[in-house]
Amino acid sequence: MSKGIISKDEDYSQWFNDLVIKADLAEYSPVRGCMIIKPYGYSIWEKMQAALDKMFKDTGHSNAYFPLFIPKSFFSKEASHVEGFAKECAVVTHYRLKNDGEGNIIVDEDAKLEEELIVRPTSETIIWNTYRGWIQSYRDLPILVNQWANVVRWEMRTRLFLRTSEFLWQEGHTAHATAEEAVAETEQMLEVYADFVENWMGVPVVKGRKTANERFAGALDTYCIEALMQDGKALQAGTSHFLGQNFAKAFDVKFTSKEGKLDYVWATSWGVSTRLMGALVMTHSDDSGLVLPPMLAPIQVVVVPIYKHDEELENIRTYVKGLTTELKSKNISIKFDDRDTQRPGFKFAEYELKGVPLRIALGSRDMQNGTVELARRDTKTKETVSQEGLADRIEKLLEEIQKNIYQKAFNFRAENTTEVDDYEEFKRLLDEKPGFISAHWDGTSETVQRIKEETKATIRCIPLNNKQEEGKCILTGNPSTQRVLFARAY
Amino acid sequence: MSKGIISKDEDYSQWFNDLVIKADLAEYSPVRGCMIIKPYGYSIWEKMQAALDKMFKDTGHSNAYFPLFIPKSFFSKEASHVEGFAKECAVVTHYRLKNDGEGNIIVDEDAKLEEELIVRPTSETIIWNTYRGWIQSYRDLPILVNQWANVVRWEMRTRLFLRTSEFLWQEGHTAHATAEEAVAETEQMLEVYADFVENWMGVPVVKGRKTANERFAGALDTYCIEALMQDGKALQAGTSHFLGQNFAKAFDVKFTSKEGKLDYVWATSWGVSTRLMGALVMTHSDDSGLVLPPMLAPIQVVVVPIYKHDEELENIRTYVKGLTTELKSKNISIKFDDRDTQRPGFKFAEYELKGVPLRIALGSRDMQNGTVELARRDTKTKETVSQEGLADRIEKLLEEIQKNIYQKAFNFRAENTTEVDDYEEFKRLLDEKPGFISAHWDGTSETVQRIKEETKATIRCIPLNNKQEEGKCILTGNPSTQRVLFARAY
Repeated sequence: MSKGIISKDEDYSQWFNDLVIKADLAEYSPVRGCMIIKPYGYSIWEKMQAALDKMFKDTGHSNAYFPLFIPKSFFSKEASHVEGFAKECAVVTHYRLKNDGEGNIIVDEDAKLEEELIVRPTSETIIWNTYRGWIQSYRDLPILVNQWANVVRWEMRTRLFLRTSEFLWQEGHTAHATAEEAVAETEQMLEVYADFVENWMGVPVVKGRKTANERFAGALDTYCIEALMQDGKALQAGTSHFLGQNFAKAFDVKFTSKEGKLDYVWATSWGVSTRLMGALVMTHSDDSGLVLPPMLAPIQVVVVPIYKHDEELENIRTYVKGLTTELKSKNISIKFDDRDTQRPGFKFAEYELKGVPLRIALGSRDMQNGTVELARRDTKTKETVSQEGLADRIEKLLEEIQKNIYQKAFNFRAENTTEVDDYEEFKRLLDEKPGFISAHWDGTSETVQRIKEETKATIRCIPLNNKQEEGKCILTGNPSTQRVLFARAY
Repeated sequence: MSKGIISKDEDYSQWFNDLVIKADLAEYSPVRGCMIIKPYGYSIWEKMQAALDKMFKDTGHSNAYFPLFIPKSFFSKEASHVEGFAKECAVVTHYRLKNDGEGNIIVDEDAKLEEELIVRPTSETIIWNTYRGWIQSYRDLPILVNQWANVVRWEMRTRLFLRTSEFLWQEGHTAHATAEEAVAETEQMLEVYADFVENWMGVPVVKGRKTANERFAGALDTYCIEALMQDGKALQAGTSHFLGQNFAKAFDVKFTSKEGKLDYVWATSWGVSTRLMGALVMTHSDDSGLVLPPMLAPIQVVVVPIYKHDEELENIRTYVKGLTTELKSKNISIKFDDRDTQRPGFKFAEYELKGVPLRIALGSRDMQNGTVELARRDTKTKETVSQEGLADRIEKLLEEIQKNIYQKAFNFRAENTTEVDDYEEFKRLLDEKPGFISAHWDGTSETVQRIKEETKATIRCIPLNNKQEEGKCILTGNPSTQRVLFARAY
């Protein structure tokens, strides 16, 4: 326990909430369900954005921006989409406020909109309405567009980063001449997400497809990456949808093919959100605070000087200046915390809380001996090492930490993924040792529904390249050809 | 006239609108007053964002994110702010839609919010409400935060980029221990804006202060940069506000000083928006299309091959590959347009329309002679030059173009800024040769108001470091100590 954070073994949910707030990632706002992302939290999100944005551009995508508001009638155009999204939305009904003459600000009833506007929960409808004007022939295809934006889905129970009424995300929306091309795009973007989440965030994921029950409203096929949190609950970290011609039909978007034939356009959409921040915190952190992967840490190395006299501090400062230059040339960020208002012990705890991967403590004796004390956040190990070659050592250590936290999460997942063939065992495990359960399923919606009602577990995904094997459904005993991944989920 | 764009001399306003649409910068959306920023337009905005963001960070600022929605009551807390902003706003009154049973989506009247939410027109109120929790002592100051966000101000008459109901911007919100520090911040950010607009956008600006009439609602002092468009109308390109203790008092944000005294915190805010895109287009472009400053051009160099046989194309391709590598090492972007579906003449017109600074035409004879044809977008001059040393030549030319378009705009402004001492001459000039008019003013609101009513001209700013001289007000003849800058404005 550190700085008023409860232990994660005691109350995982409270631990997460405390940590997000104490580590200055985010806080609740006075607006129900909306959060404030604080500078430290936002700087991690910015690093995520930059990495993802580069990956999107490297795969041929461009950014654009579409309106925040969507006319209400747009939602009725795609039958299954409306079921999924025209529900808990923020609805704009008026466009003016006025003074009531007694010093109160009230809504001006004369300024009622003819048609209500919905604050976008996702942008398929307004984007496909726009694509109608952009697409005439196969020469206009593919369209590979992404948008970084805020979206709103009114939530009754909210949790910082994991489920908030407003959140930040990116939504890719692509248009293609053939189904094959659209499917290839859907799969490509799933790979991009998996690559980012595993190699940048250090979070191992299972790539798979959703069952019909869990599909995106309006999609023919939803691909996803699923991660396992330290409490054994699954978290969907990203989705990529093959939308078929559903939105093209709803918004009448046709193109003339090379052969001169008129056909509807094929679509995909894909997104990740600030929810990833929640996954990052919940995968690696501990009771002392955040554990950040070096590749996303706003501060990668912090130096805390330990000194009695100003002269000692100046010596240390001079040394750190040189080290900073060396690290900068390696693109490694370093902070020198020379505040005289706080003691070293306080600073140590603060940078543990903030998840800084490497901490250097540097005292007068170190300066005499030509050494520093290096502490790793991930393993909490300390060693005294030579100042000679320190920059190279730091570079290697950061790479090692990046690998280590991934490996640790990978091992945790392996230990908490179990093949189960008996329903009683299935239920027992969910309560006693939660995690991924790999079990047979008869392929019906009814079975999924009953299992969910009885255990709160859902099918997270049907893993890609799944092994085909004969078996019996964990619930009904009906024949099955493959195992799927069950878990309780965020 | 090109590609259906009207000449700017014939109808400047229509020319601007045509150009923004034809050059693929933006288009209107089905949502009244909201625009769609298309990929080409957005890629320019991204370059602006990246440059500004770096400047903000270099001056010590961090990004954060605050809620899209603001409780209605927050607007009533700062007396003059409410007058300015609690007017034409998007008001969220409900949080759920439902099916009416006949296949229509309607607003669920049971889901009415207790307090209406306003889609932020600007974020001072919600941010200062948050700062109350962040600030206790002088150690917590300064807070130097910026937010990149969308904002909504319901507009009745909209114009792409210049005035839209939703727009993208950044808003800086800083908190300080002293008035002096806050004023210094206000002035620093004005300098940052002027630096960006002049050196990146190539748009010369006048730095100044607004008169009381034009001040930001809630500010003690508003600094601004003003630019002159090619039709002689002024455009406010950015503002930086010294807010005094107004918002700290409204939201009860106090701090304990070093001396142990409790005092209200001092504030600034500052912003620029996608309006800058409008300024960029209107300052440099011509009847053939956009003219983009190389530093913000998504494509800096385009190569159009001219060939009869595939073999010739392959020769050209090989050469361009080498050039691309050379340019890439200089951070210069190049596009090779080898589409076989369009003729060279079509491509020339297209890249003129899109404002690509340098165009290379490359034919078989060029390949034999070791030459290329280089065409500058800004001057529309062409020259045949050696392939030898081409990358260096391009680098220098891009720098020259960047300087040249600034100089051209600077000269235009100089030619269209006139000192006037007679009101009849003032009115005549506004109609016959619009531009900046430098004239004496008696310092009263009444005078500003009357001039505005009679001429549609306003005081754009009182230039910084203004020369002090005795004179008589252009309207009233009352004594004045300095000239101010009048113009009709966007």
